[in-house]
This record gives sequence, structure tokens and C-alpha cells, in this order.
Amino acid sequence: MLLEQIKKENDIKNIASADYTKLAAEIREFLINSISVTGGHLGSNLGAVELTMALHLSLNLPEDKIIWDVGHQSYTHKILTGRQAGFENLRKYGGMSGFPKRKESVCDSFDTGHSSTSISAGLGMVKARDILGEDNTIVAVIGDGSLTGGMAYEAMNNASRLETNYIIILNDNNMSISENVGGVSQYLNSIRTSDKYLNIKEGIYNKVLGMPKGNAVVESIRRVKSSFKQIVIPGMFFEDMGITYLGPVDGHDIPSMLQVMKEAKRCKGAVMVHVLTQKGKGYAPAERHPARFHGAEPFEIKTGVPSKPKTKPNYTDIFSTVMTKLGARDEKVVAITAAMPDGTGLKRFRNMYPDRFFDVGIAEEHAVTFAAGLAAGGLKPIVAIYSSFLQRAYDQILHDVCIQNLPVVFAIDRAGLVGSDGETHQGIFDLSYLSSIPNMHIMAPKNKWELSDMLKYALELGVPIALRYPRGEAYDGLEEFRAPVVYGKSEVIYEEEDIVLLAVGSMVKTAVKVRELLHERGYSCGLVNARFVKPIDEEMLQEVSDKYRILVTMEENVASGGFGEKVRTYLNSVHAQCELITVTIPDEYVEHGNVDLLTKEVGIDAESVAEKIIAAMDK
Amino acid sequence: MLLEQIKKENDIKNIASADYTKLAAEIREFLINSISVTGGHLGSNLGAVELTMALHLSLNLPEDKIIWDVGHQSYTHKILTGRQAGFENLRKYGGMSGFPKRKESVCDSFDTGHSSTSISAGLGMVKARDILGEDNTIVAVIGDGSLTGGMAYEAMNNASRLETNYIIILNDNNMSISENVGGVSQYLNSIRTSDKYLNIKEGIYNKVLGMPKGNAVVESIRRVKSSFKQIVIPGMFFEDMGITYLGPVDGHDIPSMLQVMKEAKRCKGAVMVHVLTQKGKGYAPAERHPARFHGAEPFEIKTGVPSKPKTKPNYTDIFSTVMTKLGARDEKVVAITAAMPDGTGLKRFRNMYPDRFFDVGIAEEHAVTFAAGLAAGGLKPIVAIYSSFLQRAYDQILHDVCIQNLPVVFAIDRAGLVGSDGETHQGIFDLSYLSSIPNMHIMAPKNKWELSDMLKYALELGVPIALRYPRGEAYDGLEEFRAPVVYGKSEVIYEEEDIVLLAVGSMVKTAVKVRELLHERGYSCGLVNARFVKPIDEEMLQEVSDKYRILVTMEENVASGGFGEKVRTYLNSVHAQCELITVTIPDEYVEHGNVDLLTKEVGIDAESVAEKIIAAMDK
Repeated sequence: MLLEQIKKENDIKNIASADYTKLAAEIREFLINSISVTGGHLGSNLGAVELTMALHLSLNLPEDKIIWDVGHQSYTHKILTGRQAGFENLRKYGGMSGFPKRKESVCDSFDTGHSSTSISAGLGMVKARDILGEDNTIVAVIGDGSLTGGMAYEAMNNASRLETNYIIILNDNNMSISENVGGVSQYLNSIRTSDKYLNIKEGIYNKVLGMPKGNAVVESIRRVKSSFKQIVIPGMFFEDMGITYLGPVDGHDIPSMLQVMKEAKRCKGAVMVHVLTQKGKGYAPAERHPARFHGAEPFEIKTGVPSKPKTKPNYTDIFSTVMTKLGARDEKVVAITAAMPDGTGLKRFRNMYPDRFFDVGIAEEHAVTFAAGLAAGGLKPIVAIYSSFLQRAYDQILHDVCIQNLPVVFAIDRAGLVGSDGETHQGIFDLSYLSSIPNMHIMAPKNKWELSDMLKYALELGVPIALRYPRGEAYDGLEEFRAPVVYGKSEVIYEEEDIVLLAVGSMVKTAVKVRELLHERGYSCGLVNARFVKPIDEEMLQEVSDKYRILVTMEENVASGGFGEKVRTYLNSVHAQCELITVTIPDEYVEHGNVDLLTKEVGIDAESVAEKIIAAMDK
Repeated sequence: MLLEQIKKENDIKNIASADYTKLAAEIREFLINSISVTGGHLGSNLGAVELTMALHLSLNLPEDKIIWDVGHQSYTHKILTGRQAGFENLRKYGGMSGFPKRKESVCDSFDTGHSSTSISAGLGMVKARDILGEDNTIVAVIGDGSLTGGMAYEAMNNASRLETNYIIILNDNNMSISENVGGVSQYLNSIRTSDKYLNIKEGIYNKVLGMPKGNAVVESIRRVKSSFKQIVIPGMFFEDMGITYLGPVDGHDIPSMLQVMKEAKRCKGAVMVHVLTQKGKGYAPAERHPARFHGAEPFEIKTGVPSKPKTKPNYTDIFSTVMTKLGARDEKVVAITAAMPDGTGLKRFRNMYPDRFFDVGIAEEHAVTFAAGLAAGGLKPIVAIYSSFLQRAYDQILHDVCIQNLPVVFAIDRAGLVGSDGETHQGIFDLSYLSSIPNMHIMAPKNKWELSDMLKYALELGVPIALRYPRGEAYDGLEEFRAPVVYGKSEVIYEEEDIVLLAVGSMVKTAVKVRELLHERGYSCGLVNARFVKPIDEEMLQEVSDKYRILVTMEENVASGGFGEKVRTYLNSVHAQCELITVTIPDEYVEHGNVDLLTKEVGIDAESVAEKIIAAMDK
């Protein structure tokens, strides 16, 4: 096994070049075996094996820096920097992250997770290098999907002014998580399919850049190029922005990659190396079903079928079904996703109503203001974006939707702890950032039926409104409680004495368990499903604060600006005498790991909550 | 006066074409006279007179829609839609807004204020039109400055897929508020300066698009174009994105504009019309000093000199001075602005340390992640962005700066009520959105000396930290109170009895007045300068809650997630017996108007606060 010789960064340089193909195959085999057991990002990593090897062969880590955009394609990088053993506990609590982490390795130069940040971060490191008089090489690796995010353009627009070297690798697999969208994607495709001969001058073209009067020579080459009368001049789009373009090169051909990296390193300025790769490369099921193998659950290698077949529907499934019904019922209903037709469950809506479905690419900001435009134009848009990604559009929600009080419905999936993706993906801030916005409304369903009821309600209300629900299996308890959704009103589930739990969305399920634990210990305990986080149900609060001794708010969100603080403010305003316990996520980032473990760790599991209450009762 | 004939939308169509120049001159004269008295945006409006006239002549309002990016260039549009009289109370409380407002006119189709939103909003309205089977014309008007914002690219990337008409006017004045930056700006400049003959084919080019086999013909024309062997094919950058390009045309030549609009309306798909204009056109002082006449105070027409010369320095001036000192003291100090070297006061830093200054364009998201990269690379970045614009970078602060705990200092100007720019510009959310973020620190200075002390302190602390200060004159009271800044500690100003005011930043000045009012009424009242909003000073809170009967928090921020709620949570946690009054901005958008009036309106002025306290004392 060649892999056994890779114990730390730069060990790959001791592998004979004749063995590169063998090493790549070993890495692929290891990745498939390992991820089939632990789950994780597969397709993007299989596509980036040779690309990563070429970078490690071309660079000197840790002095040189690689910034991995999004970061889920960094598995080979982890292997080549001595972290192969870490895959045993990949994305497990206390184990190795599925993303680059500075605290995990000196070879991880910048933490990533969300899309389109790498060129900005890398440009900052380039400028720091130049100001500090260092001369290392800095490389940002960005996918064509991430190039649909506006931040990447903001960064390229700035990188164009550089006079020192900065390498941007465009890892073009012609995919976001699902199919890629938009004009730039089509443009890249036109390069991909244009005649090879157009690129023959690239080598010369670049070499002259270092020469005296290099620019003049380059200009004359460009004139020559245009005499080819081609429609597409490869990379002219980037060249027009002021970024040197090299490519396209085959990203599975290591010698070509090494050659182009050599050329790229000689450029004075920002240079984009266009690398063509295939997502899922080398594993047939992943090549065929790229979206399914983007972030995969454990699977059977032979068939690609998940090891543990899903039994119960998750919230995304429920959302998916309701959306198809709503689409049938009202032709003004339109749906928007930011590159996640599969993840958000909108794929079925797309298939049924393709003209009313919009995948805007990884472009949450545009998604929200586009939705505002749709609403201003008389339609009923539903924007489905994960909680942590919607952070990108805070200003657009505040500035474009809510000032004008436009009827945009936000379907916020992955709200609360999401588990194995870790810090960057936990949806634990949405109640806070949405609460700060005037005219905004926020709801959270307790179970699968309520998600359906609330979505219908939200669509009819005609105001900016968000509906947040968690990742994973939809709760199917409390079926008998299905009172109609009423504006700003909570739902009383159980009335008892002494203690009452006021739970938001996913925490209702937890509250049911808390109540059982308290009953076991002989305590009496009521339960209210908050339903609305904004506005809060003041009438209910007045009643429960009169009736109960201890109120316990429960939410999967940080404290600041959350449900508990709103309840506290109201109770104070009416000089309520009851005690208030607020159960929230603490003011810190929550790492990756199994959600059940994480809830314990942050103290929002049923046992922790029950203990806290009992301690207060016994005082 | 031709202007007298303009009483409502479409009245311009009754003006003889021979009189267009005269009408334009009258509009300019009116704008200069009017804005010289009221203040307002001048340069951008003088540049857009003919452009707006041409749009109104080409379109049928209100059926057709214009979306004005940013919106401060919409004054001529307001005049042409019957709002000339409104200029008397422009940007005054209860008067006409300086931005498009749907509630102000049926001809204002979408509210704007922040940059780069128009193409997204317009695209939404195009899709709504198509789905609803309407056939009106939709036009987004975006400046070349706004094109440095990534959202605009996200939108163009999506607009490229359109098969129905959508007109994007690129109002290219070669300026943001200050000089424009980046590769795309250079690219536009290269078009601007390229030989005119390159554009002769544009007319033909476009006409064929509607023809059968139009695409094939267009392709052959492109081939012809490339035989010109030019380096720059005008608009190829946009064409590569899939957007038809027309231009450039002289934006002060109405017949040319009308001709190009006629062509643009025939395009099936998104079409960008590149219009060259001059900021400040027709008023020499504004032509010479575009940044100064961007948002102008009242001025003397003859000289362009402000009518009321500034007497005291504002916070921006203080920041400006301190930054030059910090730059001299430490070569690792670098400064970043998003297109606001003048507005933020970083111009002097730029002039002294050009290599350590970065104007990234109107690109707040990139600005923040770029700063994170600079910090990761070993520098000490200070990012100066207005409070309401920093909303754009919420995710970048949370995801790129704070997860990695990188030492980025945020200098947040225009925090609190900003006055005449209104809803979109009030800086009343930053304490909330920043408080929700783990690892973040937030400070606010009480006066000009403290801004200086805090900035020095922040730079040394080595963590993510924000410093928020208001628009306008820097408070120079309380000079004698200048205790060193200590981590997480407040500053006790006056110790008395019964009542204590806990004021954040700008509200310390208000609190001094509140105290005087209370003294006049015979009450005793202490005063604490909070200094830190995150973390809060729990030790101080414990002490004052023991000592005083009524605690009053005062902040220029909404309640949710603000300082008051944090104080309340702490006081509850220690079962404090004192009463808490929280003075905050209510949960609603605050309109434009004089800041003193606005503070009264929202109840955070000294009189309102004093009354509230007296009512509580008398209870």
C-alpha cells in the first residue's frame, strides 16, 4: 500500500510519479470504504483526488496555503496531511471534522463551510503575505457551483488588482450539489466543449507574463487569438475581469495539473486555473447520482444503497408533499431554492410546476430579493433555505422583504442542531436574527401535521413569515392536538400545576419527555406549544404566569434575541411573580457530532432540562 | 417653464422633442436650487436627468416598472411623476423620502436604499409578469458602483436564462460614491475608451434577435466582430454571462437613449444597456467634487460651500485621526472600506498608508471575509462599515471571523438613528445581530475621547470586536471621565441614589440630560457608561441592583437581542429586586427625518425617558 507511506504533509513527494495513479486509486478505495461506514461527503471528494495530489506535489505545506471553498472536498487533503486515522471518527463528536479546521491541523489554513468565501479569504492572506514580506504560495480552490455566489465575484473583482501571485483553482465539475445553473455555468460549459486547439497558446501566453514588456506581448497574443475567429475565447470572461486564465485542464491528469501549476506560480497577479473534474469519479453509483452522494449516509458499497433504510419521513419530506399540494391549489404559489432542490425537498414541486420553480444557484441574497420582487409582482413566493445559509440574506430579509412588508414565506429547514456538519451548519441563530427584524413573523411546528398546517397558514397570511423546522425525522407524536393555527397564538397541550413548559417547535418533542421524567419524580407539569416566536402569545403568558410557579421556555437557539428573552421581557412588564427558566443553546459554537450527544452536551436534552427544573423546585 | 406642464406621470410625453434639452436644464436648475436648501443627493441625480427622461418617454408608468438601484438617483423620476412640490420637505420628517417608496407613489415599484438589489428585484417582477400573463416592461437601473456588489452578479447569472424581455440599464458614471474599484470597473473603462467604430454593428446586431434563426445570424455577426482584431469586444463580459449587451450610449443624449430603448424592448431575454453619464453633470462644483456632492448638506449655489460650516468634529473625524496614529504606530494595522473612503473617514489613512488600505467596492461580504484572511495572515485589520450596510455581512462575521476567533476590529459608523436617509439606513439593529454571534465583542464610546481609547484597546485585544458610534457631531462632554478601558467593564460616572441610568454609547449624552431633568424634579440619579454591550458587566449590575431601586438601560437599538434584554436576563438570574426600565427603539422601521425629531418620535429623547422614570418612581 502506497498510502502507508503517507504519514504527514509532503510525504507524497516521496512517491514515484509512476505510482501516482496507483495512489489515487488507493485514496479512492479508502474514501469509499471509509465513508460507506461513517457517512460523509463522497462525490466531491472522489472528484478532487488528483487535483489535491497535484496541489500537494506543487506546494510546500504548511508554508504554502490552500483555502478550500465550502471545504467538504478536503478529505484527500486530510489524508495527505497525516489524518487518515481520523476517518474512523469522521464527523463524530470529538472526532475529525468533515471540513478544514485550523485547530485540527497546521495545514488547514482557513475554516470553511459556507460557499464562495475562499477567494476573499485567500486574497486577504495574499495581502498579508505581501505586507509582511513573505513569499509563500496561496491557492484558493473553488467549485463552479460556488462561483454562482456573488461573494466570489466581489473577490475576483478585487483580486484583479493584484500584482503578486495568487492562484485560484476553479474545480469545475459542472455541478452544484445538484445541477448547476445560470449564465456563467453555461459559459464554463462552452469552454469545456470548445475546440481544444483554442488553448494551445496558453502555455506561451503565460510564460511571457514574467518577461520584460510581458503585457505588450500578451496583448499581441490576444490579437492573434481573436484572429481564430472563435466565438468563445477560453477564459475571456475572467480575463475581462483582469484575472489571467489558464486552462481548461483535465483535473484527473496529474502531469497536466503539475505543468499548469508550474505556469500558474509564475504569474504576477491573480491567475485562474480552470480544472475539469468529475464528481463521484471512480465510484459508479456516485457518478450516476451526484446529489445523493453529495452528503451520504452510510451505504452498501456494492449497490450504493443506504445501509439503514429510512423508515419515517423527515420534515423535508413533509414540506415536499405539502408544497406539491399548495402548488396545485394556487397558481400564484412559486418556490425558490438556492442550489438545493433535493436538500430542501423542492424537487417534486420542480417536476410538477417547472415554470413556478426557481433554483437560483448558491445565491441566498439574490434568492430573497428575487422573492421580494416576485411578491411585489403579485405572486406568493416560498423561499426554502437552510437556517445557517439564510444568515447570508439577513440584510435582504430586513431591507428588501420586511420594510415593504412583502408576503414572502421562508421555509427554514435544518433549524436547530444539525449534527455532523458542525459549527458552520448549526441552525441556532435564526430565531435571533429574524426576531430583530420589524414586520417579521416566526413560527415553528411541533410535529409533521403542524408543519403542513403552518405552511398553509403562512401562505394565506400575506406578510413576511418564517417557518423553522429541524433536520431529520418528523415528530409524529401528539397527533391528537391539531387546533387550527391562529395568529400569534400558542397551543395549550396539557394543563397541570406548578410547572409549565413553553416549548418552541422541535423542543415540544423534548418537552413531552421532560414531562414524563417530572411525572416519574412526582411533579406536576403542563405543556404549551409556543407555535409563534414572533409575535409571542402575551395572553397565554399572562395566564400561565398566574397559574404556574415555574415557567420553562425551551428553544433550539442561542439565548440572545431568542424566545426565552422575549418571554422574560413580557413577564417583567406585567410584574409576573412566577420563576422563569430559559433553556437555550449557550453562547458558543457547537461542534460536529451526533445530535443526541450534542443536545446533552449543550444541556437541552430532556434529562438536563428536567434536572434543572427539579433543582429549581427543590430550592 | 416647461416643468409646470409636468403634473403627473406621462405628462413628459406632451413636451415637444425639441424642448427636451430645455426641460433637462430646468430640472437641473430645480434640483440644484432645491437641494442647496434642503440638502440631499445631488451628484447622482444631476447625472441621471436625461436617462430618467428617456425612460419616462419610452415607458408607460405605472404599468411599466422601474427599479432604481440604491434609489438616491430617483429625484428626476419623482419630479416626472408629479412630486415636484415634495422637494420642499425632502427627507424631512413626514415629508418626501429621498428614495423610491411604494407607499409614496404608484410609480415607485420597489423600495431601495442598499446597493445591488435592483436586478434581483426586477427579475422577480419579470417572472411574476410572465406567470401572470402580463406584458409590461420592467427596467432595472443600476450604477457601475453597484455592480461591484456580488448580488448584482447573482442576479445577472440568473437573468441570463430569461426568454422574455428584461432591460437592465447600466448607468455608468465611472464612480461609486468615491472612485470605483476593481477589474470590472477597469473593464467598463476599456469599453468607454475603445474606438467608436466597434459599436457600429450593435443596432443591426440587436434587430436580428427577433428574426427567425436570429441566433445563428448573431453568431455570424460576432465572428465578423472578432475579425476587427480588437482586444475589447464591447460587452463580451456580459454576453459571456448570457446577457445581450447594447452600447455604450451617451446618457445625456436623449435621442440616442430613445433609440437604444426601442432596440432593448425588442430583445427576447435580458438585455444590458450600457449608458455613459457624468456624475454632477451641469453643476461645476459637483462635477469637480463628486464625493462631497454625493449626499450634500445645504450649500451656497455659487460656490458649492456648505451653508452652515461645520464647527465641531464628528465621530468620523475622530476615527479618521486615530486611524492615522494607529497606522504610524504599528505596520500590521490595515484598514478596509466598502466604497466609503470619505464617508468612513479612512481617506487620510489611505493617503498616508496606501499599501495598507483597501477599498473593496460596494462589497461588504467580501470586505469582512477578506479581513478575516488578513487576520489569519497575521495582520490587524480594521473594517469600517456603516451599521446598516454591515447587515450584509452578518454571515461573514459569524462564519468567517468569529468561528475562528480572528482579531478583526469592526468600526461601525452611523450606528443608531441616522436621520434623513430613513428606514433603510437607520443603524438600529447592530447590537442585536452582533450579540447573537459567539466570540463577538461589542463596545460603544460615550464621547470623542473614548472612541479613541476604545479603538486602541480593540486593536490590542486580539479578538473579533465591534465599536459602534453614531452619525454626526462627536460628544465632547464628560471629558474628565476617562478611566482606562478594561475588558468587559463599565464606567461609573455618577453615583447617587434611587435611580441609575445604564447608557450605551451615544445614549450617555442623552442620559446626562435625563439626569438634569430628574434633578430639576428633585430626584436623585446615578449614571453608568456601559462601555461593553457584549460581554455585559455583571459585577457592576450586581452592585447597582443592590444599591438602586430603578435601573434604566438606554440604547439606540431595537429591544430584541439588545443591551436591555441582556441586563434583564442577568438581573433575573440573580433574582435582583430592583425595577428595570429598558429604553430602546420600538420594533418598527423608523422613517426619515431630523434625528432630534425621530428620537422624540420613538421615545428615546431625554424628556421621554425622564417622564417614563418619573412615572415609575411615582407609582
